Amino acid sequence: MNSRIQQLRKLLDKESLDAVLISTLPNITYLSSFSGFTTEDRDAYLLISKKKQYIFTHPIYREVAQKDFSDFTLVEYRRNNPFHKAVKSIIEKEKITSLGFEAFDLTVNDYIVLTEEINKKIFRPVNLIDKLRVIKDSEEIQKIKNACRLGDKTFSYILKKLKTNITEKELATETEFFIKRNQADISFDPVVAFGPNASQPHHIPDGTKLKKNCFVLFDFGVRLNNYCSDMTRTIFFGKPTKEQTELYNAVLNAQKTSSDYLKNKLALKESVHAPTIDQVGRDYLSAHGYSPFTHSSHGIGLNVHESPHLYLSSKDYMKNGMVFSIEPGTYSPSEYGIRIEDIFAIENNKLIQLTKAPKYFITM
Amino acid sequence: MNSRIQQLRKLLDKESLDAVLISTLPNITYLSSFSGFTTEDRDAYLLISKKKQYIFTHPIYREVAQKDFSDFTLVEYRRNNPFHKAVKSIIEKEKITSLGFEAFDLTVNDYIVLTEEINKKIFRPVNLIDKLRVIKDSEEIQKIKNACRLGDKTFSYILKKLKTNITEKELATETEFFIKRNQADISFDPVVAFGPNASQPHHIPDGTKLKKNCFVLFDFGVRLNNYCSDMTRTIFFGKPTKEQTELYNAVLNAQKTSSDYLKNKLALKESVHAPTIDQVGRDYLSAHGYSPFTHSSHGIGLNVHESPHLYLSSKDYMKNGMVFSIEPGTYSPSEYGIRIEDIFAIENNKLIQLTKAPKYFITM
Repeated sequence: MNSRIQQLRKLLDKESLDAVLISTLPNITYLSSFSGFTTEDRDAYLLISKKKQYIFTHPIYREVAQKDFSDFTLVEYRRNNPFHKAVKSIIEKEKITSLGFEAFDLTVNDYIVLTEEINKKIFRPVNLIDKLRVIKDSEEIQKIKNACRLGDKTFSYILKKLKTNITEKELATETEFFIKRNQADISFDPVVAFGPNASQPHHIPDGTKLKKNCFVLFDFGVRLNNYCSDMTRTIFFGKPTKEQTELYNAVLNAQKTSSDYLKNKLALKESVHAPTIDQVGRDYLSAHGYSPFTHSSHGIGLNVHESPHLYLSSKDYMKNGMVFSIEPGTYSPSEYGIRIEDIFAIENNKLIQLTKAPKYFITM
Repeated sequence: MNSRIQQLRKLLDKESLDAVLISTLPNITYLSSFSGFTTEDRDAYLLISKKKQYIFTHPIYREVAQKDFSDFTLVEYRRNNPFHKAVKSIIEKEKITSLGFEAFDLTVNDYIVLTEEINKKIFRPVNLIDKLRVIKDSEEIQKIKNACRLGDKTFSYILKKLKTNITEKELATETEFFIKRNQADISFDPVVAFGPNASQPHHIPDGTKLKKNCFVLFDFGVRLNNYCSDMTRTIFFGKPTKEQTELYNAVLNAQKTSSDYLKNKLALKESVHAPTIDQVGRDYLSAHGYSPFTHSSHGIGLNVHESPHLYLSSKDYMKNGMVFSIEPGTYSPSEYGIRIEDIFAIENNKLIQLTKAPKYFITM
């Protein structure tokens, strides 16, 4: 924990910053392991200077702050000491002349009240903790492995629940309950989509009943000890046609094309621009006459979507310690959606797959 | 739905605004009934001008936009048409010279990219939809009643689960599962706190086992058809001492003092400054030698915490159509925490209580 603050201080030096204000909840969790604050209520902020670290929060979180932020100086909000005045007094006391802040998370309101008290010129938008979080240590990879393992178990559990007339919503609820009965949380609301419903990548499970002879798509994730898993499987309920089997295998091969591409590049010690991983999968689908996916694979960790970014405009390059999905798909509006998603890590400069659930074409 | 957009346009006129940019998810839900976007990913924005309404979102939400935002013009993000450029072109096309935005929600990053394209001077921080949401119509009050009714059922269900050695976490999970089995969602993570754990108002349920002779605090809420309930009950597991019974009754009387105060003021058609409702409860506790609560009651609706604000610095006055909690408590660090929370509405200028679960001192 403390070592992360030390790493952060090295980044402060490198960026010529005196301090950084942290507002993003997963970043607060990264520096403390505490994950009980809510974004909606903006319960807490951290300020890390070169010498000290502070937590700003409401008196109702006093016991949390004392327990989970014991190496932080607690600054409680009061009527006569609101957030912006509390930050100002530290800025003055520590003579801070350059302050990083998380512009991608801080609200304009917070920025307005802060810059009414503090010279606007000292504020600089940064994303320092992202630079730390994008490279996972072995303990973090182990936590994601554990989340993926529970995801695998969830998939094998949920397959047994499939029967004619069960609804998407019922299967999604069963998925969630299984995860929660196993002392974990969901990392996002599970997606269960029958047949044409899967043509929307973010379909919300509804009362659609399962009928014979359709694809069934499951996309769900586990959050265990704050770290996320994510997995998509598409199976067939009934007897698929030859075309349906080919469709599935095309997506499976697209995923293999992407992962093999990365594996080979790593073996050759060649650098890999993150978006090319999806692109070789898309190219495979196009070359075989299938419509390629428009969504992207993504990094994963404390957030289910985080760095490295694999979308087209990303400037990220793949590095040792990165953990990410590879998730090609092919969609036809009002007809079908097929996606296969696994979580991979680069550990010891080799590609390893963390999700292990079978992905041959399951029909039942 | 459309009538809400009409009301919003009246507010635009009143505030001399040409348009408003909506980024807050519950506000997007308020104008559309759709609640499937995520805050983390900033999936969508709305822009309401005097004549037209637009939804900005990713192509993956195309089907959602067409179905749930059918009276909106869909603007899809593209590489050559990112969010800020899409907004700019509408600003130019419609000759918008004053644009409200939600500074309490919009990130500094979004603001930076927007103001790089669009003259900063046209932006004005507003909270227009809050002014609409704070007054509920009868349909909204009915939805909150329905959520409260399921909350009442949840409480009677969970009471039956109490037994020696059950953990807080297990009871919290049972609470959540009961709500979800009833086709609803939780409005926040349920709090279950045994004995001294309840001295933190936001205790996170853990592996603490239930033992005889302690207070048990439940604080949970239901989200049903997008609307929230919220309720706190404190019961006693075992046989309370005379002091413990007095403690409970003091909190119950504090709540009655607050609700009677409001009821009488409404009957007299006198205006009520929102913070006084909690204050008369705090005064009651202090007068009887108990330490008064530092947290506050709150409005409720699409959010579990929303306007009207009842905290000390609030400038809100109570009005017909408002829905809110009254939730006094008394806490002693490392000893106990007792809180009683119900949801009330002002309907036809009378105070009505929406949560109905019993609140005599339950001992078991």
